Amino acid sequence: MRKVDPERQQAKRRQIMEAAGDCFARRGFHATTTAEICAAAGMSPGNLFHYFDSKSAIIEAIVDEERRDAADYFATLEDAPDLFEALLGFLDVVMAFAADKAYARLALEIAAEAARNPTVGAMTAASDAETRAAIAALLRRAVARGQVDAQLDPAQAASWIAALIDGVFSRLAIDASFEPEREAPMLRLIVSRFLKPGSAA
Amino acid sequence: MRKVDPERQQAKRRQIMEAAGDCFARRGFHATTTAEICAAAGMSPGNLFHYFDSKSAIIEAIVDEERRDAADYFATLEDAPDLFEALLGFLDVVMAFAADKAYARLALEIAAEAARNPTVGAMTAASDAETRAAIAALLRRAVARGQVDAQLDPAQAASWIAALIDGVFSRLAIDASFEPEREAPMLRLIVSRFLKPGSAA
Repeated sequence: MRKVDPERQQAKRRQIMEAAGDCFARRGFHATTTAEICAAAGMSPGNLFHYFDSKSAIIEAIVDEERRDAADYFATLEDAPDLFEALLGFLDVVMAFAADKAYARLALEIAAEAARNPTVGAMTAASDAETRAAIAALLRRAVARGQVDAQLDPAQAASWIAALIDGVFSRLAIDASFEPEREAPMLRLIVSRFLKPGSAA
Repeated sequence: MRKVDPERQQAKRRQIMEAAGDCFARRGFHATTTAEICAAAGMSPGNLFHYFDSKSAIIEAIVDEERRDAADYFATLEDAPDLFEALLGFLDVVMAFAADKAYARLALEIAAEAARNPTVGAMTAASDAETRAAIAALLRRAVARGQVDAQLDPAQAASWIAALIDGVFSRLAIDASFEPEREAPMLRLIVSRFLKPGSAA
């Protein structure tokens, strides 16, 4: 029996996920065939199934990687000197992803599949809950430092920041004139006015 | 040839749209059969096709009715004494709809179908553009009266209010703990802080 090299295995999986992500963004998740994914990844169908059982397993792996990437990102903010600016920086990153048409299309494909496929739905919900918890934790620390309005419930405020991010991707689907590059400063403004201590109303 | 009574015709169409909307919300647009819609509407399949050519035609009629309802709603705000409060009242109405589980599920079905079906997609985009234009017009008048920050571009601010509304429906799909009844005051707060003249940041 051939020994499995975990690093090589991981690199191969990532290569497939990237090729599949491109296909899903371009053609839609359901319209994409495993043959197309294999062609894009430059491998034989038999070989693909060594790494993923199904097309659904690939999208699940993409959701899980996004979840881990987000967790890693928030871990780097632990020592940020200005937590408020750290949160706004996160929103800039989200808007940069939204400006990437392939990424935005893949995000919408994942959301659609989450509604149809309970496994993808549960993973997406878990990832979303984890990101909201990370934002809430950041807000809690920012409140303690007087950088965020103490009247706000951090978990609830985090939900609304998540709603704004969801809203950006919905805008991309429905409104061709919505340009993330141009809108990024507006997201900063809305969240700043929402969270700053001493905000009115 | 039997004479068509336009009012009766319209009442019958509305009856079918309501029955179909319930089915779509409960079972999903694609899983719903025309036989189920007929049973729910209490009519024979042959009779249904006098009113709608297809299942898609029914969802198109629902989108069009929503568009007209929204236009009628904004027309009633023309003479509102406090335009700012009128906008917040509109957001309360949106949150009341979001709290209606059947309505929220139907909204998500329509959004999903808009992504798959170009006709539904174009109608949804047109309806969205019309609502954004109505919000922008209201904001423009509110700016003139000093009720909204004159630094904001009304069309851009309207896009972000639309993004927040989209975000509410996305939250309902992904986060079981998001309760519109509880969140309605928060949407008011976010939009107030965003728009009020003299807001910081």
